[in-house]
Amino acid sequence: MPNPSPVLTALAVATALAAPAGPATAAPESAVPPKTMAELLAASADTDWRRLDPSSTLYLDLDAGRVIIELAPRFAPRHVANIIALAREHYYDGLAITRVQDNFVVQWGDAQRPLKGAARALPAEFTRTVDPAAPFTRLPDPDGYAPVVGFSDGLPAARDAAGATTWLAHCYGTVGVGRDNDAGSGSGAELYVVIGHAPRQLDRNITVVGRVVHGIERLSALPRGGGPMGFLDATATGAPIHSVRLAADLPAAQRLAVEVLRTDTPLFTRLVEARRNRTDDWYKVPAGYIDLCSVPLPARISAPSPAGSD
Amino acid sequence: MPNPSPVLTALAVATALAAPAGPATAAPESAVPPKTMAELLAASADTDWRRLDPSSTLYLDLDAGRVIIELAPRFAPRHVANIIALAREHYYDGLAITRVQDNFVVQWGDAQRPLKGAARALPAEFTRTVDPAAPFTRLPDPDGYAPVVGFSDGLPAARDAAGATTWLAHCYGTVGVGRDNDAGSGSGAELYVVIGHAPRQLDRNITVVGRVVHGIERLSALPRGGGPMGFLDATATGAPIHSVRLAADLPAAQRLAVEVLRTDTPLFTRLVEARRNRTDDWYKVPAGYIDLCSVPLPARISAPSPAGSD
Repeated sequence: MPNPSPVLTALAVATALAAPAGPATAAPESAVPPKTMAELLAASADTDWRRLDPSSTLYLDLDAGRVIIELAPRFAPRHVANIIALAREHYYDGLAITRVQDNFVVQWGDAQRPLKGAARALPAEFTRTVDPAAPFTRLPDPDGYAPVVGFSDGLPAARDAAGATTWLAHCYGTVGVGRDNDAGSGSGAELYVVIGHAPRQLDRNITVVGRVVHGIERLSALPRGGGPMGFLDATATGAPIHSVRLAADLPAAQRLAVEVLRTDTPLFTRLVEARRNRTDDWYKVPAGYIDLCSVPLPARISAPSPAGSD
Repeated sequence: MPNPSPVLTALAVATALAAPAGPATAAPESAVPPKTMAELLAASADTDWRRLDPSSTLYLDLDAGRVIIELAPRFAPRHVANIIALAREHYYDGLAITRVQDNFVVQWGDAQRPLKGAARALPAEFTRTVDPAAPFTRLPDPDGYAPVVGFSDGLPAARDAAGATTWLAHCYGTVGVGRDNDAGSGSGAELYVVIGHAPRQLDRNITVVGRVVHGIERLSALPRGGGPMGFLDATATGAPIHSVRLAADLPAAQRLAVEVLRTDTPLFTRLVEARRNRTDDWYKVPAGYIDLCSVPLPARISAPSPAGSD
């Protein structure tokens, strides 16, 4: 979860967690406006959250557990449809992680595995014409890589100066479609997830299809590949991919009730400000700025998970 | 190494690596100006590199191998001296990694372990008065977190608008000193390394003491901690720290000949431009911008390593 905390010493953390509740004379909770992210989330209403749509939610199951990806059909409709087709024909099942490049990406897929009905290559969906009906919460902070940035459908997104064209930004957890030099050579048969400092130079150069909302540490902590560009060399065995499934294709009882914080609410605006200018006791100098990829996009599992599925 | 590559498919990588050399009629190498980072580094001269100073180089030895940290005495002289004192009294030896927070930091230390001569707490060194003699290569790209950014002694650094005050920036690989809420509560007895998207909000809030120049994947791929803020919980055993040594305290034959690319050369300026506006066949849209923490700071081992030390 993108929730960087202060760099407290272990002892201070242990002390803080062990601290007794405040004295009986403390002000009632409602008198203290929430100011940290934890306090804001604790004060959030159910309407501040949005349940993931099972028809655009992927479960990637590894030995280490489940990784949950929210797909972005508004930004890459053809690629998202093809990834769903690939999942339905069980293309990904039994493959393995092929690339783990430190401070960059984890990648999987096999461009040579036969396909059943899914497409082998698709026209690029690097950018889109802005849909006036699409939600967009602008981040007021300037961005070096795009004239306008903000959040659309809970995803970090950018727009051109005219507001005519939009694209998804590469932040930690962004999921995209590997391709060769030809812009139209990707299909979803190779996917990657960002596990390092935001590689924003990829923006508008590759098709982004979504974001990991849960379990990214199951990818980011994988052993790094020893070959060029972090591909696994012949001596290494990549983490097996047990299956990739669309949540909607599973019985309802096997789906996880994952919610993500909405990015079009007053609470989200307050959360961004709480992170732009931190006012807790640890921080001495508020940054006065927050970059697009430092804005936390919290997720929570709102119902008990089926045994073994999380 | 901070060297993000294109997101090529595995097949394309295999093909590229297997590609035959150019035809015999190809232009001689000198006729083609280098344009990618790999080409620029291949064309670099020995004078473009700087050998690490053993008196400010730490070796952190884990089961997974060696992590090499370049210390920054110009920015945090008292903390660097104290960390060297801690290493010399073998304070770190036999400790373990205590915290692995995804997309944030790895941390180690034990604020309760008795010290011999090293200090338990030191006055903060969050910022410094600019030394006019210090090298500083300004990055022309605007930065949201500081009026001026660039590189000083090979480290990402920032300055205030007046050019009077400077500080090191938190990028992937940055090493700093954990502290409690009191600004003067750090000493180096707990250290952290950034393993995620640059947490620039920490800038000017904590003492930065250097940067990992080699082996960061031995930290970034560690299993994430299950407790609050990524601290390891009672069920987990942190990766053991065999030793932390100052390179100068080892016999010369046991030191690694690590060089880092100088950041005050025309080659470095060309490298930054090559990454700001990529012109290789894969990229379709050059970014036109590069953020401070996306600038690669290459290192190389220029002599054979002693057996088992790398």
